[in-house]
Amino acid sequence: MRNDSRLKHVQYYERRQSRVARKLGRSKFDTLLITQLADIRYLCGFTGSSAVLVLTRDDAAFFTDGRYSEQAHTEVVGAANVIIEGNPLRRALQWSQESKARCLGLDFAHISVSLFQQVQQQFGGRVKLEDCSGMVQSFRMIKDEQEITRIRGAVKLGAELFSTALESIRPGVPESRVAAEMEYEARRRGGEGMSFETIVAGGTRSALPHGRASHARLPRRGFVVLDFGVILTGYCSDMTRTVHLGKTDARERRMYDAVLRAQLAAIGKVRPGVGVSVVDAAARETLDRAGFGQFFTHSTGHGMGLEVHEPPRIAGKQRQKLQPGMVITVEPGVYIPGEGGVRIEDMVLVTDSGCEVLTPTTKKLITI
Amino acid sequence: MRNDSRLKHVQYYERRQSRVARKLGRSKFDTLLITQLADIRYLCGFTGSSAVLVLTRDDAAFFTDGRYSEQAHTEVVGAANVIIEGNPLRRALQWSQESKARCLGLDFAHISVSLFQQVQQQFGGRVKLEDCSGMVQSFRMIKDEQEITRIRGAVKLGAELFSTALESIRPGVPESRVAAEMEYEARRRGGEGMSFETIVAGGTRSALPHGRASHARLPRRGFVVLDFGVILTGYCSDMTRTVHLGKTDARERRMYDAVLRAQLAAIGKVRPGVGVSVVDAAARETLDRAGFGQFFTHSTGHGMGLEVHEPPRIAGKQRQKLQPGMVITVEPGVYIPGEGGVRIEDMVLVTDSGCEVLTPTTKKLITI
Repeated sequence: MRNDSRLKHVQYYERRQSRVARKLGRSKFDTLLITQLADIRYLCGFTGSSAVLVLTRDDAAFFTDGRYSEQAHTEVVGAANVIIEGNPLRRALQWSQESKARCLGLDFAHISVSLFQQVQQQFGGRVKLEDCSGMVQSFRMIKDEQEITRIRGAVKLGAELFSTALESIRPGVPESRVAAEMEYEARRRGGEGMSFETIVAGGTRSALPHGRASHARLPRRGFVVLDFGVILTGYCSDMTRTVHLGKTDARERRMYDAVLRAQLAAIGKVRPGVGVSVVDAAARETLDRAGFGQFFTHSTGHGMGLEVHEPPRIAGKQRQKLQPGMVITVEPGVYIPGEGGVRIEDMVLVTDSGCEVLTPTTKKLITI
Repeated sequence: MRNDSRLKHVQYYERRQSRVARKLGRSKFDTLLITQLADIRYLCGFTGSSAVLVLTRDDAAFFTDGRYSEQAHTEVVGAANVIIEGNPLRRALQWSQESKARCLGLDFAHISVSLFQQVQQQFGGRVKLEDCSGMVQSFRMIKDEQEITRIRGAVKLGAELFSTALESIRPGVPESRVAAEMEYEARRRGGEGMSFETIVAGGTRSALPHGRASHARLPRRGFVVLDFGVILTGYCSDMTRTVHLGKTDARERRMYDAVLRAQLAAIGKVRPGVGVSVVDAAARETLDRAGFGQFFTHSTGHGMGLEVHEPPRIAGKQRQKLQPGMVITVEPGVYIPGEGGVRIEDMVLVTDSGCEVLTPTTKKLITI
């Protein structure tokens, strides 16, 4: 990295840490024990698989084990103390004790009961342990410029794989072969991996909302649902397109049109200040009116970033309001058991005045 | 599946469940709430990503959500009750209450504090909640015939990828390109995915014990560590070979020989009744004597199966004794920062009288 881009890189992490520190200053916590890897990566840039980050109102310490010594020194930003010895959790607790923690925030949604008991035991009641789940995630929900740039990169790479898929889809080809071609292309183009198990589900299997690519062969005719994403510079993409093998019949065209209209209706609602349930309802009502409502069996979307599922959930009972900088998926679907299914999914950035659909790919029904 | 093989398939799961039920009969628990997906797959064959399995001494109930309706009906074996509606955890707790649970076992190592609090709240103190972590895992540690067959399949497929790697390794090729070729081949040959992020680490990067394939290009000379595995029929493989680009020097040959001798010494100890620490010590002492002991910075191995890391850990402080049916890795390594590293890893099955090295690949140093 050149010096100026390195500086900018460091500033993003420092800004994220200082935002959390300010929030800490206004909370009951004096110390946060951060154990979820995506939170750690967000706050200090470390990409390894074993670490604990401790934040206080004016200090930060990072802990990992011997395997990650070199990597920690290269990657970790903004933690004055980088400690690489022994068990990271035990050392992090010691450090918190020495820095006089009194009320320690732990992410109850991501820490196991066993680990919690270990922490309790080490502190022996001298430190209050309270739930801070959602705290770092609430910052992660609003993406900064660096994150949006990275997400755009992941979305672009992901979208390129749709062309790869189209080249290999034909009757008789195993679903897993289509996935293989897509994943190979992702890697060749620099992807770090897929953001979830690639879904290629043809014929009646398209009616399985989670029909990951199987050894089943694509049929002569019917829908093929393709749901896939890549990880690039740590950030995930996620998109779904449904294509059709052979000629469509009238009912299939009605299904596809209904899903597409539902997706567009939902996207049409995305802007700052709107509740996520309004977005969900727009998709659901469109499908209801088209007579397919009962076959839309999941929520309309989810936030994305370092993880493929992040807050907010775009669902009926959620109260979250959309804010600029959120990146969400909008992905209604219709699944008729024994028959077939259609899902269409884009990634959408909430902007200051509305939204921007990040996924560049056509949604016109492609028949092969 | 033909009828007789279907029957055999069902029997494996029923046998696993009845073993756990018998253990339940001798324990303080009357009910187990199983939330870890690998445990659920082991006991009833379900491969989806959202489920809860409840076992009592004489009954079993399986819970998932609407997305997995078809899949649950096809896959789940041995649970008389398959319930697909609402939130699986909430429904599972209701069912436990209705079946008069008094002491409920929960896997504290795999359940979050939030989830635990939710369970506490729903039961309001009327049911005792205790830790059953390790209980299903202790059965999973000893593989049955079906599992060993599946593991052999995964190991074979994994080993085939080494040839693919050899074809693409040459100076100037990005590490990620080598990984891409291997992963593509895995998919083409029916693999469901890789069992962990493929490691291809060349030159000084070979000194990173977790140097997953990066965009760095392979150097003109130096070691290349390849650590990779596939998932096939749910089971994981894991192997490491280290090759050399260009001519080796005397020190490099000493390093490689020392690691190979350490690995063989460790394998030489594997038989029923031997403590895992003895296996670890054999590798460590060999490297100590060769003067490389300080550069062996991780444990010697781990169990494998539905997950790539399972009990037992093959490490100095562990007390577990080896038993027939265990499948472990033996993978000592030497990592000299700024210089290079070597690791050699096989999968090993503990047999009645000793062990069988499952990985079929040569360990002679290959120079390219």
